[in-house]
Amino acid sequence: MNESESVESVALAARYAAIKSLQELLSDRLSTAASVREQHGKDASYHPCVPPDAVAFAQSTEEVIEVVKICARHKVPLIPFGSGTGVEGHIAALRGGVCLDLSRMNRILRVNTGDLDATVQAGVTHERLNEHLRGSGLFFSVDPGGNSTIGGMAATRASGTNTVRYGTMRENVLSLEVVLPDGRVIRTARRARKSAAGYDLTRLFVGSEGTLGVITEITVRLYGVPAAISSAVCSFPSVEAAVNVVIKTIQAGVPVARIELADAAQMDAIKRYSKLHLPVAPTLWLEFHGTEAGVAEQANMVQLIASEHGGADFSWTTNLENHDKLWRARHDVLYANKALRDGAQLWATDVCVPISRLAECIIETQKDLAGSLLPTPIVGHAGDGNFHVCFVLNPNDPREIEEAERLNERMVHRALSLDGTCTGEHGIGCGKIDLLLAEHGEAVSIMHAIKTAIDPDNIMNPGKILRI
Amino acid sequence: MNESESVESVALAARYAAIKSLQELLSDRLSTAASVREQHGKDASYHPCVPPDAVAFAQSTEEVIEVVKICARHKVPLIPFGSGTGVEGHIAALRGGVCLDLSRMNRILRVNTGDLDATVQAGVTHERLNEHLRGSGLFFSVDPGGNSTIGGMAATRASGTNTVRYGTMRENVLSLEVVLPDGRVIRTARRARKSAAGYDLTRLFVGSEGTLGVITEITVRLYGVPAAISSAVCSFPSVEAAVNVVIKTIQAGVPVARIELADAAQMDAIKRYSKLHLPVAPTLWLEFHGTEAGVAEQANMVQLIASEHGGADFSWTTNLENHDKLWRARHDVLYANKALRDGAQLWATDVCVPISRLAECIIETQKDLAGSLLPTPIVGHAGDGNFHVCFVLNPNDPREIEEAERLNERMVHRALSLDGTCTGEHGIGCGKIDLLLAEHGEAVSIMHAIKTAIDPDNIMNPGKILRI
Repeated sequence: MNESESVESVALAARYAAIKSLQELLSDRLSTAASVREQHGKDASYHPCVPPDAVAFAQSTEEVIEVVKICARHKVPLIPFGSGTGVEGHIAALRGGVCLDLSRMNRILRVNTGDLDATVQAGVTHERLNEHLRGSGLFFSVDPGGNSTIGGMAATRASGTNTVRYGTMRENVLSLEVVLPDGRVIRTARRARKSAAGYDLTRLFVGSEGTLGVITEITVRLYGVPAAISSAVCSFPSVEAAVNVVIKTIQAGVPVARIELADAAQMDAIKRYSKLHLPVAPTLWLEFHGTEAGVAEQANMVQLIASEHGGADFSWTTNLENHDKLWRARHDVLYANKALRDGAQLWATDVCVPISRLAECIIETQKDLAGSLLPTPIVGHAGDGNFHVCFVLNPNDPREIEEAERLNERMVHRALSLDGTCTGEHGIGCGKIDLLLAEHGEAVSIMHAIKTAIDPDNIMNPGKILRI
Repeated sequence: MNESESVESVALAARYAAIKSLQELLSDRLSTAASVREQHGKDASYHPCVPPDAVAFAQSTEEVIEVVKICARHKVPLIPFGSGTGVEGHIAALRGGVCLDLSRMNRILRVNTGDLDATVQAGVTHERLNEHLRGSGLFFSVDPGGNSTIGGMAATRASGTNTVRYGTMRENVLSLEVVLPDGRVIRTARRARKSAAGYDLTRLFVGSEGTLGVITEITVRLYGVPAAISSAVCSFPSVEAAVNVVIKTIQAGVPVARIELADAAQMDAIKRYSKLHLPVAPTLWLEFHGTEAGVAEQANMVQLIASEHGGADFSWTTNLENHDKLWRARHDVLYANKALRDGAQLWATDVCVPISRLAECIIETQKDLAGSLLPTPIVGHAGDGNFHVCFVLNPNDPREIEEAERLNERMVHRALSLDGTCTGEHGIGCGKIDLLLAEHGEAVSIMHAIKTAIDPDNIMNPGKILRI
């Protein structure tokens, strides 16, 4: 046995010992079945499945503490898991270890209507929280594509279509309960709306992707359901014209709730899939929240701006049925894109730039994509300067993967050169570690220092965000 | 010479050596004059003056780097200084060392109207940025009481009267340039509106009170100047009635820009000072931003809510002259309070609680204050659940200081028991270190770990936030 084999065999022994202890703790809620492990080694992306050695299903913070302590004692990797809707390989068990599935921690603990906040366990999904809130006059705003858990959304700093008005998880998490890598529990903040009390631990753990601890409870902000909602859709002669409408709308202080952009390729895919009569041209979807008079005023203001930029067929409505059909088409983009090729898989990547650079970034990216063998529709949260390219590819063809890798990297470097970020909402996972370095340079050493200070044995989701 | 004397003398030698190097670097921009040192050892609070050994006036990031390197080499404390408007002893040179005055780094580097952001050097004040923006249709929203520098505001996570609509510095800083304790420079983020790229270093440095590095540049969000502004004022039979109006207003989704509360004692002080005809009763000030129609609609909605809660003489206006008089009275509270007693000094403390607990917290605090020998008016940013008690005291009378300490501590513990924080916007400084511990418990050890990882020699503003 050489040295590396010996290290490997010690690690293996540690994993077995940890799994044995976990079995004693959790009984049949600790699974080593291949199907369960495989299901927990694969997210909603092109990243290959890397299954953990075992999957632990926790039902309470107390159990999470015990699981973390066992993994800490044996120095075995621990990977928190929500619903597996991530797209940057966040839950791949790159160094083996235990996947901690939090989906059974799904209790809504408190809704404070007077304070417009709610406290939930990590496994509650955003859809379930909103179902629970129905009739209360309140809603939770953050809406990533999948039915993600709120714990996972906090861990990846998720956002979605109405960030332009209501913010990302960064703005909408008031407080977290976190089990630290040594098994201690902290609450990062009280429920006050603001605080100047010490370092902002809430924002440190939001977006830490399970690398600093396990998020077990989240207190989120809620908003009053608007008295009226209106929706609009409008197509444009160019991406630039559409983006200029976005910029002018925001400068004019119109408090749009959603302002989404799809390019012609994306509109073509949507039209084929949803059978709606929509022009195959750059298109903006908008949603306005407010009073009856307010949403009409907002829609009229944007209509005026759109008409000055060649917007065609601007139509808006407060009729919820029309509204639903419209937004359904937007929400179905992933299905529409998948339907473009038989047996295809999606690689959805995202960047975010200052909105004054958005048109340039999209147009240059489109030029770059034009020569590609892959369909590459573009859709984005234009109000934030955030857009997605969706590579529709055959995951078993290395040439296609390589092609997507090359185009992705070029797009990220383009975004960085325009003062943008390598990801607006998908996170780093194991997919964008080098691009994080390209973006942050020296600052990554501070992330390293923080990681090492909080998780010296690197047991929490190793191989994500940082290469230790 | 015993051991502690010997340590002391080594430290003294290091300080002399550092000051000598700084003199070579900065020439007459390094001052050891008593008047300059004293001016830099005292903030706008009751905290006693603790002057530094020297004051360095930097003019560029490059100079800041050199100053930091000199202090790092000699392990001499370094205290960043903006305009000295803090109120928790943030800039007291508790362990001697060098005060780094950034007020001459006062260039506005870029205004990006398309992206609604601006990048400024740390010494630019919020008033100066807004003067610069006049005519551009944009404004910077964060407005603490004094004319603070934006660097200082970022360092203390400042907020102010319109946080309820536009957020604190936490939400309004897009990116920072920071000189680390070893002299390296990082930028914490690009200019994109959102990012999921790694740990949120921006939010880590916002509110770190100079203990993790020197903030040299700040990119902040701007907003479009609203087409119309309306203002309202209304008095109530009780604090509870006023707070209920705040809660109902926010639940109804009225996007108030400001909603400020003053208690009867505060109104009495304001009335005496400003000679305005205002009832001596709990009072709400409101401001609405939007379109002409929008601000009228908002004011009418709040008027209706106020009338249901016993609001008297609700008056609102879009006449800017009346508006200015109204808000001048609000802004003058510190002068009004100072005028209550000859030669008095103010000790302004703040807490922040969930708004459903705000009435309870204020009423219990008023009861506690009722027996005090000091005038103790209360004013607050009610929309955030944040309020201030202003102890009007004789700083040379230890009994009065003791009395304020006792009442302050009781108020903070009351706020904590109501799920609030020990400070909504003033920060920890050296004044609330024990109260931070009371609030955060175990979580403070994570702050310690971060501080030690980033500033292992504890040269950055030692003795603030944490006791190392």
